[in-house]
Amino acid sequence: MSGKVDARLAELGITLPSPAAPAANYVPTVRSGNLVFVAGQVTFDAQGKPQFIGKLGREFDVAQGQQAARLCGINILAQMKAALGGDLDRVVRCVRVGGFVNAVPDFTDHPKVINGASDLLVQVLGDAGKHARAAIGVGSLPLGVACEVEAVFEVR
Amino acid sequence: MSGKVDARLAELGITLPSPAAPAANYVPTVRSGNLVFVAGQVTFDAQGKPQFIGKLGREFDVAQGQQAARLCGINILAQMKAALGGDLDRVVRCVRVGGFVNAVPDFTDHPKVINGASDLLVQVLGDAGKHARAAIGVGSLPLGVACEVEAVFEVR
Amino acid sequence: MSGKVDARLAELGITLPSPAAPAANYVPTVRSGNLVFVAGQVTFDAQGKPQFIGKLGREFDVAQGQQAARLCGINILAQMKAALGGDLDRVVRCVRVGGFVNAVPDFTDHPKVINGASDLLVQVLGDAGKHARAAIGVGSLPLGVACEVEAVFEVR
Repeated sequence: MSGKVDARLAELGITLPSPAAPAANYVPTVRSGNLVFVAGQVTFDAQGKPQFIGKLGREFDVAQGQQAARLCGINILAQMKAALGGDLDRVVRCVRVGGFVNAVPDFTDHPKVINGASDLLVQVLGDAGKHARAAIGVGSLPLGVACEVEAVFEVR
Repeated sequence: MSGKVDARLAELGITLPSPAAPAANYVPTVRSGNLVFVAGQVTFDAQGKPQFIGKLGREFDVAQGQQAARLCGINILAQMKAALGGDLDRVVRCVRVGGFVNAVPDFTDHPKVINGASDLLVQVLGDAGKHARAAIGVGSLPLGVACEVEAVFEVR
Repeated sequence: MSGKVDARLAELGITLPSPAAPAANYVPTVRSGNLVFVAGQVTFDAQGKPQFIGKLGREFDVAQGQQAARLCGINILAQMKAALGGDLDRVVRCVRVGGFVNAVPDFTDHPKVINGASDLLVQVLGDAGKHARAAIGVGSLPLGVACEVEAVFEVR
């Protein structure tokens, strides 16, 4: 816990969980050149139990959706820490975030929901956390979770 | 307005709008190496007002959806122009487009809709506008717009 | 048919089809640096006829969805073979897979469905087939197919 990003996480009171193991023939992160692609992360809590099962506009409101997205963001950072041998200071930049909101057909507040993840990345990584982003509403998600987020990072 | 791409835009009668500012902790474009990732663009018109609110197969037909996708494509070019210091001739290639169509569950003409954006990119950039593409139907989109398009470009 | 990957395909009894031509102003693959972006592939069979028209949780169960995803994966490999001048041994790594499952709103088994594509990539490419992945449920897909899969590869 000696890096700058680790210090910032501690300051924010965030403990990164053990990164979730994929359930299948895929891996949580792949590095190619200076880019690390992080698999879609869902709302597993630190005990590995999925939280926020339901849809925006039905079971959950925007504030709850933001918490769900924040949890996905925490899991992305946990995967990145593992990918970087424990040293999150090797993150140069978060390049892209894809945010998937499990919502009813007439939901329209996807940007606010995915801000839960985007705000977290900027809180933790500062300017290096500012990314390009696509936020969309999906018809359904694995395990019925409210939110899934994937990301691409540039690293050193 | 001295570049080749600017000349082609003028020839086509297309005026790029001021690029839309993101509403949150993300940025419209991120460059990493020679790639520029453009955030998902929706159907804002030149006055910053969202157009085409509704779904394909309900409020809009394919021809209207194509106009919506074309508008997203124009906004992508506006973001790229800003990212490249005003010089769109620095585009080497459009690498990938992700096209999201807000549609009813049994809609099937997503490729035709997203052609609105793809055709625009090829009209403006020529062979450099030809990209790999994924076109999918989403259950809902920010602001209720009919279409959102993101892109990755290689630049010099 | 002299490469290692070709030999493995033969061992698995898989014949790659002629790659499908895109229906519009986009291309099946774009290379930028060492990355190849493959356009979203759907469930065309070797005769170019779309298979698996319908939704998970309505027309199709998980096992059928896996077959649909496997077919998308075969079409991805066919596109990559064409992109690499016939030599799939030039694949260094499958970097990322995006899996889109056409499903009813309360479907939750997307990871199992997309395993149809992921398992195929690992069967054929070994460790080089292990990728980061996002699997999501979409409201609708082109032609009404049950599944669409896109991918990014690192190549030599």
